[in-house]
Amino acid sequence: MHTIQELQQIIDKAVKETAYPATPKELYEPISYLMSLGGKRLRPALVLMATDLFGGAIEDAISPALAVELFHNFTLMHDDIMDKAPLRRGKPTVHAKWNEAVAILSGDVMFVKAYQMMIQVKPDILSSVLAIFNETAIGVCEGQQIDMNFECRAQVGIPEYLEMIKLKTAVLLGGALKIGALIGNASEKDAQNLYDFGVNLGIAFQLQDDILDVYGDPEKFGKQVGGDIISNKKTFLLIKALELAKGAKADELNHWLNLKTFDSKEKVKSVTAIYDSLGIRQLSEELMNDFADKAYQALDSIHLPETQKQTLNDFATLLVDREH
Amino acid sequence: MHTIQELQQIIDKAVKETAYPATPKELYEPISYLMSLGGKRLRPALVLMATDLFGGAIEDAISPALAVELFHNFTLMHDDIMDKAPLRRGKPTVHAKWNEAVAILSGDVMFVKAYQMMIQVKPDILSSVLAIFNETAIGVCEGQQIDMNFECRAQVGIPEYLEMIKLKTAVLLGGALKIGALIGNASEKDAQNLYDFGVNLGIAFQLQDDILDVYGDPEKFGKQVGGDIISNKKTFLLIKALELAKGAKADELNHWLNLKTFDSKEKVKSVTAIYDSLGIRQLSEELMNDFADKAYQALDSIHLPETQKQTLNDFATLLVDREH
Repeated sequence: MHTIQELQQIIDKAVKETAYPATPKELYEPISYLMSLGGKRLRPALVLMATDLFGGAIEDAISPALAVELFHNFTLMHDDIMDKAPLRRGKPTVHAKWNEAVAILSGDVMFVKAYQMMIQVKPDILSSVLAIFNETAIGVCEGQQIDMNFECRAQVGIPEYLEMIKLKTAVLLGGALKIGALIGNASEKDAQNLYDFGVNLGIAFQLQDDILDVYGDPEKFGKQVGGDIISNKKTFLLIKALELAKGAKADELNHWLNLKTFDSKEKVKSVTAIYDSLGIRQLSEELMNDFADKAYQALDSIHLPETQKQTLNDFATLLVDREH
Repeated sequence: MHTIQELQQIIDKAVKETAYPATPKELYEPISYLMSLGGKRLRPALVLMATDLFGGAIEDAISPALAVELFHNFTLMHDDIMDKAPLRRGKPTVHAKWNEAVAILSGDVMFVKAYQMMIQVKPDILSSVLAIFNETAIGVCEGQQIDMNFECRAQVGIPEYLEMIKLKTAVLLGGALKIGALIGNASEKDAQNLYDFGVNLGIAFQLQDDILDVYGDPEKFGKQVGGDIISNKKTFLLIKALELAKGAKADELNHWLNLKTFDSKEKVKSVTAIYDSLGIRQLSEELMNDFADKAYQALDSIHLPETQKQTLNDFATLLVDREH
């Protein structure tokens, strides 16, 4: 079994060694640029971990792992256009650095490159792997659309919020693991359990993101704490607070949500105080732990010795207990 | 052997019968909308024709044919954003009817749907079919980027123009035919010859498009004759005219190209007169016929009785001799 660090090094090396054609440079430079910005390489690591878990050869999983990372970065390139985001990982987004047309078309090519990497799996699992990859890709797109729709809506319920983050974030973690499991010759049942582990872990991961955005340590978080509050982003914390706040507290929360001009620090402080008074942090952590527990249960039911599952267990703990 | 009309009916029926999920409607309605706008269904017809040519079962080729049509329409959806086109087949483009974010994301989903259709080929040819499909998709994206780059350049040469239309238009015709050939169990050599037939036919097809835009019968053309002249589009005709015009004629041509405000009819009439005086129409038709001849030669070298190849021969003649 490989350690998480070993697997991440394998991925970093493979990403660095991937060469793209020189021309048209408007298509290929943005791919190299975005892929070089780093990130946690979480999703490709999950492909390798899953293959390793079932005793498969890591080398067989490298191309599919890169495919998953290319796909993830393709969705970031297109999402950033739609969200009009100026920065990604502290650097200009592709549409900001080049232009929108470049970000659309370069993203499209990146998606094809992902398929080129993915079809390098062995022929006997090609059809199953692609079926998972396609379904995952559609889920991620649906999640992004639902997320954009939420921005235009006054009210969003908790179940539909959870469904959105499941699609937008969690299914790709599940898909990455399931593809890795198939490469490692796992049984369909074990592969499905690993998928469920990934999806539940993914939901916990996103809830932790929501929590850190409000309660993270500014020194460690890496982004502006309170960003979600400033932009009225409909996270679990806000949706739950809107559900629980009554009377004067509801009025105060809505007052902050409706203000067009405000002092950011003051808004973050006031809304956080409302969250505190409603016990939102605890409720969020309980829900996150519920999903983490479901993930651990799915991992438990896989037919392998506990010691082999330790890396994934550690990885899950790392994601849920992280501070950034 | 099926007639072209029979094959097109099979495709129209399959397009009509394809159902998409109801939600998120922003993702799926644009796909149904664009696919319902019609068009020649040229590319999917080529998939079926190729399968039929080698005695394969048409039913096996329907999903891959739809994949090719979905892919083609996906590229139209994204190209229309980049080109800021308000109309497609006389109706509002997706980004005009909805918005850019919808056109980006719905296009992405459409591309995944194309892959979902394509992986329905038999397992023994899946890997080869996807390799062709991926390579074709990358070619089409490269062609679109090179075409956009041409807009910002003062000079474009004939060889690079031909390379651009090969990538943007012709490789997909070749790819559609080669995929159909593999479904029909063609040998690698015959499949490659059919690919060459498609690529050369595709270049001839695009040159005919350029010619019709200037010399088409307004009653039959369906679009505004002279649109390319009005927008200074770098077609074969303009590039060749810029190459051949000298002295006062070159000055007159450049005068029309540089005018910011002008009477459209007058510009079309004057530039067409310059083309006429340079023999551009004849040169364009000669070049188009050269590529058509190369296409017929590639078709000739396929190891099948002439009678079986008649449908493809007829189809090629139809494309090259068309008036719209």
